[in-house]
Amino acid sequence: MNSRNTFWVKYQIEASKKDEAASKARQISIEQSVEMPPEVVPESSKGKIAQVHKLNQTGENSWEATILFDTQIVDSDPTQFLNVLFGNISLQPWCRLFDADPAYLSELLHGPSFGINGIRELLKLPDRPLSCAVIKPVGSSAVELANMALQFAKGGIDIIKDDHGLTDQISAKFEERVKLCTRAVREGEQLSGKKTLYFPNITTSAIHIQERYLKAVESGADGVLIAPQLVGFETMHELAKLGKVPIMAHPTFSGSYLVNRNGIDPVFYFGKLTRSFGADAIIYPNAQGRFSFSTEICIAINRSCHEEFDSIIPAFPAPGGGVKLKTISNLTKQYGNDIIFLIGGSLYKQDAGLIKASEQFQNALIRHEN
Amino acid sequence: MNSRNTFWVKYQIEASKKDEAASKARQISIEQSVEMPPEVVPESSKGKIAQVHKLNQTGENSWEATILFDTQIVDSDPTQFLNVLFGNISLQPWCRLFDADPAYLSELLHGPSFGINGIRELLKLPDRPLSCAVIKPVGSSAVELANMALQFAKGGIDIIKDDHGLTDQISAKFEERVKLCTRAVREGEQLSGKKTLYFPNITTSAIHIQERYLKAVESGADGVLIAPQLVGFETMHELAKLGKVPIMAHPTFSGSYLVNRNGIDPVFYFGKLTRSFGADAIIYPNAQGRFSFSTEICIAINRSCHEEFDSIIPAFPAPGGGVKLKTISNLTKQYGNDIIFLIGGSLYKQDAGLIKASEQFQNALIRHEN
Repeated sequence: MNSRNTFWVKYQIEASKKDEAASKARQISIEQSVEMPPEVVPESSKGKIAQVHKLNQTGENSWEATILFDTQIVDSDPTQFLNVLFGNISLQPWCRLFDADPAYLSELLHGPSFGINGIRELLKLPDRPLSCAVIKPVGSSAVELANMALQFAKGGIDIIKDDHGLTDQISAKFEERVKLCTRAVREGEQLSGKKTLYFPNITTSAIHIQERYLKAVESGADGVLIAPQLVGFETMHELAKLGKVPIMAHPTFSGSYLVNRNGIDPVFYFGKLTRSFGADAIIYPNAQGRFSFSTEICIAINRSCHEEFDSIIPAFPAPGGGVKLKTISNLTKQYGNDIIFLIGGSLYKQDAGLIKASEQFQNALIRHEN
Repeated sequence: MNSRNTFWVKYQIEASKKDEAASKARQISIEQSVEMPPEVVPESSKGKIAQVHKLNQTGENSWEATILFDTQIVDSDPTQFLNVLFGNISLQPWCRLFDADPAYLSELLHGPSFGINGIRELLKLPDRPLSCAVIKPVGSSAVELANMALQFAKGGIDIIKDDHGLTDQISAKFEERVKLCTRAVREGEQLSGKKTLYFPNITTSAIHIQERYLKAVESGADGVLIAPQLVGFETMHELAKLGKVPIMAHPTFSGSYLVNRNGIDPVFYFGKLTRSFGADAIIYPNAQGRFSFSTEICIAINRSCHEEFDSIIPAFPAPGGGVKLKTISNLTKQYGNDIIFLIGGSLYKQDAGLIKASEQFQNALIRHEN
C-alpha cells in the first residue's frame, strides 16, 4: 500500500471566466487537503497542500480541474478517502466530483470479490443477460414472501432479491424470512431445473450488519443486498472483503448526489466508486422509467462497470425502473449481455401470475451477438 | 416503542399544477412505502401504503405534501427510517425532504446525551457563547498538534477539536495524537485557570469507530468529532447511546443534500435529524464565509437546534466559516448565547500568535442580554 505518492481527482467547476475557475480549483485543492490559508500552513505540512495539475474549459461556463493529492492524507483509510474526494467541497454549489484515479482506487480498495464472472459461475450461465425479480412489499409475511420467491424460482428467474424496504419488521422477521425464502428458492430450482440466487437485504445499523451478513450466509443465501449510502460505503467494503457471497448495491438515499448540478457524476459514482467499495452488482435508476437518467448515461454507467482496472474486476450493472418484458431485447442491444435486468412492481402486474411472468422474463433474455 | 401507529413527513414538491402536485405526492407515498403499483399490493399490505394527508401550495411552482407513514414499516430501525424518509424518492429532482414528525423522532431516536446543558456543565460556563478552535493541518506531527492545543488552552479556548481530516495518518497516529493533545490541554488549563475540552476526530470505518471512541475516552478526551454522513447516521447514534462523552457532528460529504434544489432542508437536517441521531454540538456552514447559506437559514438552524421536543434535548449549533473576532459580538445578537463559534484557519492568521489570538477570541464571547 501507499507505494505511490499522489493520486488525481477530477472536478467539474462552474465559472464564467478562467480566473474564476482557477481560483475555485485552487479553493478545492486547499479545502480538501490542509483546509487553512496556505500562508499559515506550517513548513512540515506545505507538501500536503493538493496541487491543481490541469484546468480545461469544457463548456461555456464549465471547467474541469485535475487535482493531485498526496496519498499520505488518506493513509489507507477508505472513509478518509471519501472525505478527501468530496468533503467540505460538497457544500459548494459550483462543484461536482467527476472522476478519480483508477490506479489509486485499486491500490486503496478491494473491489468486487465475485464480479461478473463470479456471479456467472454461481449461476452456470456464461454469457446471456440475467434477470432479477424482487419480493415485496413491506407488510407481507415471511410465508407470503417465500411463496413469491418460490414462484419466481419455478419460473426460472436468475436472481431474487428482497425489496430494499424489508429489514426486520415484525411482519417478516429477518431470520425467518431468509430461512423460508432460501428454502423456497431451493425448492423452486427443483422444478425449473436451473439455479436461482437469493439476495436478502441486510441493510441496518453498521454495528449489526455483519451479524446479518453472517446469518444470511449461514442460512444459505446466495448473496446480499446493501444500501451503501445508508450504512456507509466502508461498511459495505468491509463485508466485501469477507468475500463469502456477492453483494448487490442499492442506490436508495443517494439521489441528491446524482440528480443535481452539485453532486457526483453518476458514471463515476456507480461504475468506479460503488464498485471499488466492493459491489458485485450495482443497481442504478434506469432511463425510460420513473427516474431521470438518460439512455446515454445508462450506457456510460454500464461501460464503466465493465471496465477492469488493475485489481478491480468488472461488476454487473443492474438497471431498475422502466425495464419491461417487451423492451428487454432492445435494451440488450444497447446495454450488452453483461447486465442484470431488474424488474420490480411491473412483474406483479402480469395477469398470468408470477410463474408465467417469470418464464416470459426468462424467454426475453437472449444473448445479443454483435 | 411503537406506541403510535403513524408518523408524518413533509416534502416540498415542484409542480406547475395541482393535479401534477397531487400525482407526485401520491408517487412519494407509494415509492417510500410499498414501492409497487397499488393495484397489485396484496391485501395484507394495503394498510402499509403511506397516505397523502395534506397538500398545500406554497409558491408558484411549489407545494408541500404531508405524508402519513405506518410506524411498522420502520419498526424501530433508525437506518430503515432514513430509507423511508428519503430513499428512492431522493432520486427525483422535483422532491425535497422538508420536515418529519418530532414526536416520532423522539420515540425512535436517542437524541443528544449531553446537549447544551451537559456541555455547559463540563465547562462550568452557564450562559455565554462558547469558542471552538481547530488543531490542523494534516501532515503536522502529534507533537506539533499538541503544541497548538497547548497554546489554545493557555489562551482559554472552550473547545479544541481535531481538524476533520486528521484520522490515523502516519504523520500523527490517532492514539499518540489523542494522548499528547489531552495532556497538553490539561497543562494549558493550569495556566488559563479554566476548563478546556478536547474533541479528537474518530471518523473511520464503522467497524473500527467504537474502538476509537473508547480509546479517546480512556485517554481522557472530553468529547469526539464524527462525520455522520461518512460513517452512517446510525453509527453516530449507537455511540451517542453509549453516552460517555459529547459528540460534535461535522457536515463533510453532506453538501449535495444541502445546497441543491433536490435535497434535505438544512434546518431539518441539522436541527432535527442530526440532533435526533445523537449530536450534542452540530457544525454547519455559516453565512458570511466561503459557504452559501444565508443568515436567515443559519438563524433558523440555531432555533431548531435549541428547540426541545419530548425526550430530544437541545444541542449546540456550531457555525463554522465566516466567523471572525470582530463579528462575534454582532453574531451573538443574531444567534443567541447558546452557540459555539468555530474558528478554523483564520485564528492562525493573527500575527500575535495562537495564545494571544485565543485570548482575543475569548474576550469577544460576551453574553448578549435582550
